[in-house]
Amino acid sequence: MRFMTTSDKPEPAAETADAAAHTGVAAQDWATAATDPQYKAAVVDLLGALAYGELAAFERLAEDAKLAPTLEDKAELAKMASAEFHHFERLRDRLTEIGEEPTAAMEPFVAALDGFHKQTAPSDWLEGLVKAYVGDSIASDFYREVAARLDADTRSLVLAVLDDTGHAGFAVERVRAAIDADPRVGGRLALWARRLMGEALSQSQRVVAERDALSTMLVGGVADGFDLAEVGKMFSRITEAHTKRMAALGLAA
Amino acid sequence: MRFMTTSDKPEPAAETADAAAHTGVAAQDWATAATDPQYKAAVVDLLGALAYGELAAFERLAEDAKLAPTLEDKAELAKMASAEFHHFERLRDRLTEIGEEPTAAMEPFVAALDGFHKQTAPSDWLEGLVKAYVGDSIASDFYREVAARLDADTRSLVLAVLDDTGHAGFAVERVRAAIDADPRVGGRLALWARRLMGEALSQSQRVVAERDALSTMLVGGVADGFDLAEVGKMFSRITEAHTKRMAALGLAA
Repeated sequence: MRFMTTSDKPEPAAETADAAAHTGVAAQDWATAATDPQYKAAVVDLLGALAYGELAAFERLAEDAKLAPTLEDKAELAKMASAEFHHFERLRDRLTEIGEEPTAAMEPFVAALDGFHKQTAPSDWLEGLVKAYVGDSIASDFYREVAARLDADTRSLVLAVLDDTGHAGFAVERVRAAIDADPRVGGRLALWARRLMGEALSQSQRVVAERDALSTMLVGGVADGFDLAEVGKMFSRITEAHTKRMAALGLAA
Repeated sequence: MRFMTTSDKPEPAAETADAAAHTGVAAQDWATAATDPQYKAAVVDLLGALAYGELAAFERLAEDAKLAPTLEDKAELAKMASAEFHHFERLRDRLTEIGEEPTAAMEPFVAALDGFHKQTAPSDWLEGLVKAYVGDSIASDFYREVAARLDADTRSLVLAVLDDTGHAGFAVERVRAAIDADPRVGGRLALWARRLMGEALSQSQRVVAERDALSTMLVGGVADGFDLAEVGKMFSRITEAHTKRMAALGLAA
């Protein structure tokens, strides 16, 4: 999902997580881990949030396709949108498989995700590309961090869904070319990227504040959850990765 | 693509066409048929129109997904949109395969298709469903009629792309339920369906007037093309099928 061309590639959080030996819940399969109702509720939250995130991403990318300057660009965005839809299908099917009603699982996250997209409607093609890139990257970093704490079955689904997009290269290439052609574009897009990051953090806080099971898992209440210090560190890692990505894109974060 | 529940199912044009023995171009493969430059130009036009039609359908369905009253409905429309995108991919890849630039092949049809969608932006969820159903059905009828006149390779691609959608059932079910719940909805939607048909015909005429190779094929200038009387009959068959579909839906056409 990420695309780096500089040699100072940040340590991907996922690699760090994968390298760590899996203990506790992370060493279990779903059937075992799900016997803890609080863990199960947290995973349903996570899958619901991710599923609606993919559906909302589908809509956002399809909408942005209208801003495309050429038919090739339009087709490229439509392709991304279609890929997000297939991720949505996998997550929805998994929710059904574990006996949950997908709509009920997604519903709690509709307001936050719709809120994010409403607050950050791109005003042109380049803003749309930066948003697709930044949004995907931050979401990907976050879910990879969380994935390391999940049972083996849920983890492999979450990683699979995050893995096979590889669309960021397209966004990066187009944005770099636009900045090369007119350096002033860089300043405007840097500002835009900061706004996206701010809005993403504010909506995340809203979700964490509202969803007990999810936040309990994040701060260590359930099995191998993070402790508070570790959550702080996780947010630093995500912010740092964002800053490096923006620099690689030619934008000051 | 079509969904009929009444016993007075109209004779699908495709069956009629398939039953006819293939002669002339229709009995040839692409390599043989394409040695006629006028035939080749007509097929490139056809694939370009169909490809952009699918891409435009993707955008329209993704846009209509926003009007969905529930998350399930939204997901259903997103699924249709994604299927249209995959059809687009097949057509685009075929254009590349026969040595054509897909964008150049699509370009001549952008204005007519964008014009159609602009003139028929649905104002609510039900109008969107009726449009998806009517638009798909008419396009499908038209391409099936034309397919019978194409070389075997092009014919099988066109039929494959038209065949595996099967989404109409969803639209029909939702529209029928809405009319059952409030019969006045039927009057409004019948009017809407008439407007869609009128706009589709007017944009088709625009395309036929502008694209020589395509219209020459349709009116018999190339190989097994239709003669003018047959074009007239084709339009009657399509209109008749439309009328029967609307009746099946509970709408007076």
